[in-house]
Amino acid sequence: MAQVKRLLLLLLCVCSTARLVQSKVHFYSWEISYQFKSPDCYKKLAVTINGETPGPTILAQQGDTIVVEVKNNLLTENVAIHWHGIRQIGTPWFDGTEGVTQCPIVPGDNFIYTFVVDRPGTYLYHAHYGMQRSAGLYGLIQVAVPDGFVEPFAYDDDRSIILNDWWHNSTYELATGLSSIPFVWVGEPQSLLINGRGKFNCPAAQPTSSCNATNPECSPFVLTVVPGKTYRLRIASVTSLSALNFEIEGHNLTVVEADGHYVKPFVVKNLNIYSGETYSVIFTANQDPSRNYWLAVNVVSRKPGTPTGTGILNYFPNHPNRPPPTTAPPASPPWNDTEYRFKQSVDARAHPNYVLPPPPTSDRTIILLNTQNMVDGHMKWSLNNVSFNLPHTPYLIAVKENLRHVFDQRPAPETYDYRNYDIYAKPKNPNATTGTPIYRLGFNTTVDVILQNAKMPGNSSSETHPWHLHGHDFWVLAHGHGKFDPERDPKRYNLVDPIMKNTVALHPFGWTALRFRADNPGVWLFHCHIEAHFSMGMGVVFAEGVDRVGKLPTSIMGCGESKNFLGSP
Amino acid sequence: MAQVKRLLLLLLCVCSTARLVQSKVHFYSWEISYQFKSPDCYKKLAVTINGETPGPTILAQQGDTIVVEVKNNLLTENVAIHWHGIRQIGTPWFDGTEGVTQCPIVPGDNFIYTFVVDRPGTYLYHAHYGMQRSAGLYGLIQVAVPDGFVEPFAYDDDRSIILNDWWHNSTYELATGLSSIPFVWVGEPQSLLINGRGKFNCPAAQPTSSCNATNPECSPFVLTVVPGKTYRLRIASVTSLSALNFEIEGHNLTVVEADGHYVKPFVVKNLNIYSGETYSVIFTANQDPSRNYWLAVNVVSRKPGTPTGTGILNYFPNHPNRPPPTTAPPASPPWNDTEYRFKQSVDARAHPNYVLPPPPTSDRTIILLNTQNMVDGHMKWSLNNVSFNLPHTPYLIAVKENLRHVFDQRPAPETYDYRNYDIYAKPKNPNATTGTPIYRLGFNTTVDVILQNAKMPGNSSSETHPWHLHGHDFWVLAHGHGKFDPERDPKRYNLVDPIMKNTVALHPFGWTALRFRADNPGVWLFHCHIEAHFSMGMGVVFAEGVDRVGKLPTSIMGCGESKNFLGSP
Repeated sequence: MAQVKRLLLLLLCVCSTARLVQSKVHFYSWEISYQFKSPDCYKKLAVTINGETPGPTILAQQGDTIVVEVKNNLLTENVAIHWHGIRQIGTPWFDGTEGVTQCPIVPGDNFIYTFVVDRPGTYLYHAHYGMQRSAGLYGLIQVAVPDGFVEPFAYDDDRSIILNDWWHNSTYELATGLSSIPFVWVGEPQSLLINGRGKFNCPAAQPTSSCNATNPECSPFVLTVVPGKTYRLRIASVTSLSALNFEIEGHNLTVVEADGHYVKPFVVKNLNIYSGETYSVIFTANQDPSRNYWLAVNVVSRKPGTPTGTGILNYFPNHPNRPPPTTAPPASPPWNDTEYRFKQSVDARAHPNYVLPPPPTSDRTIILLNTQNMVDGHMKWSLNNVSFNLPHTPYLIAVKENLRHVFDQRPAPETYDYRNYDIYAKPKNPNATTGTPIYRLGFNTTVDVILQNAKMPGNSSSETHPWHLHGHDFWVLAHGHGKFDPERDPKRYNLVDPIMKNTVALHPFGWTALRFRADNPGVWLFHCHIEAHFSMGMGVVFAEGVDRVGKLPTSIMGCGESKNFLGSP
Repeated sequence: MAQVKRLLLLLLCVCSTARLVQSKVHFYSWEISYQFKSPDCYKKLAVTINGETPGPTILAQQGDTIVVEVKNNLLTENVAIHWHGIRQIGTPWFDGTEGVTQCPIVPGDNFIYTFVVDRPGTYLYHAHYGMQRSAGLYGLIQVAVPDGFVEPFAYDDDRSIILNDWWHNSTYELATGLSSIPFVWVGEPQSLLINGRGKFNCPAAQPTSSCNATNPECSPFVLTVVPGKTYRLRIASVTSLSALNFEIEGHNLTVVEADGHYVKPFVVKNLNIYSGETYSVIFTANQDPSRNYWLAVNVVSRKPGTPTGTGILNYFPNHPNRPPPTTAPPASPPWNDTEYRFKQSVDARAHPNYVLPPPPTSDRTIILLNTQNMVDGHMKWSLNNVSFNLPHTPYLIAVKENLRHVFDQRPAPETYDYRNYDIYAKPKNPNATTGTPIYRLGFNTTVDVILQNAKMPGNSSSETHPWHLHGHDFWVLAHGHGKFDPERDPKRYNLVDPIMKNTVALHPFGWTALRFRADNPGVWLFHCHIEAHFSMGMGVVFAEGVDRVGKLPTSIMGCGESKNFLGSP
C-alpha cells in the first residue's frame, strides 16, 4: 500500500513536470450563441457552445493542457466559463468565475482559457456569470489516468451522463423574480434532463408551435450496453436547483469515484447526487437481456414538482426505443427521507489505497450559519448574517493590486452566536446585511469550515445546500444532525479516511465539517451550487497567498477598476 | 475617476460660461434594470430606467447641458444609450452607439453621458445596442427655446406622446430568429403602445397569470384637454418595426415641427410617422365637449397584424375613461396607400421664416441601393450589396487611433449599377457580402445621399425604411418614384425650402435624396431605424474630421483593441 502511494506521488510529480515532455495540449474553439433548442420537446432559447447544449465533453489525460478559445457571439450578453473541479494551480485567473477571478467576456471578444488538468477524474464546466448556467452552457471534463496507471476498479467501457433541471422561462425571468420586491419564484423546473434530453408533457392548451413531442432533439437518451459487460458510468449534475436521485432499473451501482477521488466502493440501489457533484459508478449488464430498462432521475430533498426524467438502458441488440420498458420508471425513495441521503454522505470514504490523510489539526475554524433573510425588502441567503455581493472589480485583481476600496476590508464574520441561536426556530435575523467582505487565509495553513444549516423563515423546512469550493479539494470530516458543537463534535471527525471532494451536501437541520489546505495562491469562491441561492447571496470568498500569484493576464481585466491596469506599457 | 475629473472640468467650463448664456446643467441618475411590466396587460420582462418604461422625459432649454449617469444593473447584459437627434457637437464619443462611438456599458459599470442640447425641439433617447431598444429602454427629450424667443405658432399647453410597438417574445428571441438559418420571423407585434400603454386582448386560452386586463399599468393613456384651448402635441415614434398613422378622432392636426425643425404649417386629418421621427402638431379642443374622443395609432405600409392602439382625448371635466367613446376608433387610410404617405413626405417644407438654405451643390453623391439578400444562408439587408457588420472595436476609436486592421479599409461602395439594375424585379444579388467598410467624408464637404428602394426577394413588395443619420440634420431634397436618375432627377431637387430632418422615409419602390454638411468631427452611423433591419445589416458609417476630435474619454473604451488605450499613464 505504501508502495502504491509512493507510485502515485511519483506519478503526480512526473506529470506536473512532464508537461513539457509528455503531456498533450488540447485546443478547443467554442462559439457561444443563443439558439432555439427543444431539449424537452419545448422550444426555447438556450445558450449553446458551437450550437449545442450540453457542450462537447473535454477528454484529456492527467497533466494535459486544455486551451479553450471562447468567442462570445451572444448579442448583448457577456459570458464566463468555470472549470468546475479543476484546481487551476498556477492559473488562478482562469477559474472563470466572473467577479472573483475575471471580468465578463463581452460580445465579440475572444477569451482564451489555458489550464492543466492535474488530476484524473470526472469534472464539469459551466457558465459562471449571473444565472447563465441555467440557460444551457455546461458540459463534462473527463481526465484519464496516465498511461500504465491501473485504477482500483475494472470495467469494459466508460460512459457518462450529465443531469440538469430545465425551465421554460428564461434565466432573465428567473433572476428578475429572485431580486424583485416582493420575491417572485419561477416555480419548479418543467423537466429533468439526461445528457440534455427530457420530455415535457405538452398540455393540450399549449401552443404546438413551441412544443413538439416528436422533435428528435428530445428523444430519450439511450445508454446501450452489451449483455454481461461491466461499465463505468460517470454521472454529473449541474442542476440549478434540484437534488436528484439516479437509478438504473434493476441494476445496482457500485460507487467508485466522487469529484475525482477514488472512494471505498459501496453499493447502492440508487445514487443521490447534488448540483456540482460528479460520481463514477460501476454496473454490470447482468439482467434479462431480452428487454430494456429505465434510467430514472427524480427530485429529492424538495417536494417534487417535476416529473421523473427518464432515459433508456438498452441491451444490445434490442431496439433502443421500441418498445419502451413496460415497467414503471423507478421512483426515488421518499423525497423528504433526509436520513437516506445523509447515510450516503456518511458512507462515502476514501479508497483505502488512495487515502490522502488530512492534517490532524487545523489552524482556523470558520463556522458559517446558513440562513434565509430579508434585507431591504429583498429575500436573501446569508452566511453569519452577511449576504454575499460580487464587487464590480474582480476580487483576484482587487486583492493582488491592493485596491482596498473595491470591497469591504473588514474581515468576514468568523462564526455566529451558536450558543444562543436556535436552528429549529424561525430565524429572527434582525441585522442581516449584504456585503463584500472576504476571508484572508494564511498561506499553507489548514482551515476548517463548518457549514451549519437552519430553519427557513417561510416554512418549517430546511433545505439541502450543495457547497462547492473553487481551487481546492477538501476533506469531508463529518456530517452531523442538529447544531454543531465546537467542543464536542470535532472529536467525531473522521481523520482516518475522509473522502475528498469539491462539492458537499449540507443536509437539512444538519451540519457538515470540512478541512482544506490554503495552498493554492489565488482568490477562490465557496458557494452553494444552487444557482438561485448563490444569486441571492449564498457564498463567501477565500484569498490565500495572493502575493505569490504571478502577473495577472490583461485578458481578465476591463471592468471596474481593472480598466486602469490595461493599456500599452 | 478620470471620467469624474472630466465631468468636473466640463461642469466648471459650463458654469463659468453660464453667466453669459444662462445655460443650465441637468443631472440624471438612471439605473437600468429588468423589471416585469405589463404595458399592454401582458406581463413580460422589460428593460427599464429607474423601474419605468418609457423612461423619464428629459426637459431642458436650448444650450443646456445634460448629464446622465447610467448605472447598468442588468444581470449579464450590457447597454448603451443613444440621444437621437442630438448632434453631439464636440462630444462625438457620447452619441451612445455601441460599436460606432463606444464600447457597451457592462453590468455594474457607471457611465456618464454629458452633452449639450444645442437646438430646441423634440428628440428621443433609446438603447442602441443589439435589439435592446425593443426591450423598452426609450424616452423623450424636449428642448425649449431660449427665454424670449417666440416660436412661429401659438398654443396654450404642451403635451407629448411616444409611440411604440411591442412583442411578447423577448428581444433575444426576436434577434436569434433573425440570425437563424433558416430565418425565423417573430411575427407582427402584439400591441401598439401610446406612452407605454396598450391593450392586448388576452385570449381565453392564455394563462391569466401573465395577462391581466385590469392591471392599471395598461389603462389607456389619457390626454386631458380644456374645451377651447389649443395644444402643442409632440409625437415621437420609437417602433422597432411599424410605420404608424396617428389620428385624434374629430380633430385636425397642424404639423409645425419635425425632428426639431419648424415646418411650413400643413393640416392633416392624421399623421404618418416612422420610427425615429418626431413631430409637433397643433390642435384645438373645439369639438363637442360633452364626450371624449379616441387617440388612435394604426400600422401602415406593412399589412397590419396588430390591432389599433388607442388612448383617450378627455374633454375636461368628463371622466377620463367612463364611458369610453361609443364611436369606433379611427382606422388609418389603407395600409398600402403609399401615395398617401408619399404626399405627406412631399408636403413637409421648411417654415418660410426658418429656412436654412442648403448648399446649392454637393461635393459627392453616394447612391445606396437597399436590398434584401441571402449571405451565407443568412437573410440580410444590404446597401450596394454590402451588409453592414459592426466591428468589435468601435469605429470612432479605430479611426481616430488609426487601427487599420479593425475594419475593412477599402472604401464602401459609392453606388450600384443603376443603369442595369431593375428595382421592380426580384433581386439576383449574386455577390452580396457582409462587411465593415465605411465612407470617409472630406471635412466640411457637402454630401448627397440617394436612398434607392427596390423589390424584396420573398414577395412582390418593397418596404418603407426610415433612415436615421447620427450627428447631423440633413436637407430632404426630394422624394421620387421608381429608379433615381442621376442625370435627370437632381434637377427636381428642392433647394429653396427643403425640410431638415434626422430621419426620413424611403418609400416603397421609390427614392429619397438628402444632403448634409460633413461638418461634425466624428464617426456617425446612418441606418434604417427598423430594429430588425439594422440588425440584419441595413446601415453605413460616415467618418469626417476625425483628426479634429479631441482626446477620447477612456470611459468609451474597454472592448476589442480599445483595451490597449486604457490604463494609468
